[in-house]
Amino acid sequence: MESLVTETKPHSAAECSRIARPLADVLGRIGSRWTIHVIIALTNGPMRFSELKRHLEGISQKMLTQTLRDLEADGLVTRTVTPIIPPRVDYELTEMGMELRIPLAGIAEWASRNSPAINRSRANHAQANG
Amino acid sequence: MESLVTETKPHSAAECSRIARPLADVLGRIGSRWTIHVIIALTNGPMRFSELKRHLEGISQKMLTQTLRDLEADGLVTRTVTPIIPPRVDYELTEMGMELRIPLAGIAEWASRNSPAINRSRANHAQANG
Repeated sequence: MESLVTETKPHSAAECSRIARPLADVLGRIGSRWTIHVIIALTNGPMRFSELKRHLEGISQKMLTQTLRDLEADGLVTRTVTPIIPPRVDYELTEMGMELRIPLAGIAEWASRNSPAINRSRANHAQANG
Repeated sequence: MESLVTETKPHSAAECSRIARPLADVLGRIGSRWTIHVIIALTNGPMRFSELKRHLEGISQKMLTQTLRDLEADGLVTRTVTPIIPPRVDYELTEMGMELRIPLAGIAEWASRNSPAINRSRANHAQANG
């Protein structure tokens, strides 16, 4: 059965998985609301923890700490501690993090252009199926 | 406090939210593994349920049904039933769904290029903090 699909389709199932798996993995990791907010905020340049906290209205201290920790673990953000009193902690996108700006801007453009249509479609669908 | 941030940063907190919110919302919806698989599979053209099921190795009938239902509700996929016996059901990306191809390809390119570095970074981080 697989060969039929492969013959008639330009993407084989294997090739499809090869493309989709790292993509889904990355989107699963960076796709959360706060992660996106942090990446977009940091495209302006390095920010201190307290600045980010103010910038990301509504984020809890705990959630911001965890989001930054995950981004640091992924190698998308660096954390620099300046040993003054009180210690100053700066967060900055790595080169790899900065490279995400352009494709994210593409998805953001699509999202802002199409979100009214998506919301309309969902409302109609809910009505038709509710 | 907010005005300070606005003055020194090209993206204000409000502007940042305006960009990040629909983006995070969209990524939250399309960012799941199977949704991405289905969108990528359908960029080749319409497919029947049974073809998709074969193409997406490992997906359960229930998960595929739910994924397609959500994509249909969002207006990204259309479902066409041909009343033959047994009924034939085709799924196809809408124009809006097709437009997602290009930015998704950008993120996919980034993901496949950087996933080794991300995995290395996570392994190092886990070792350093474990």
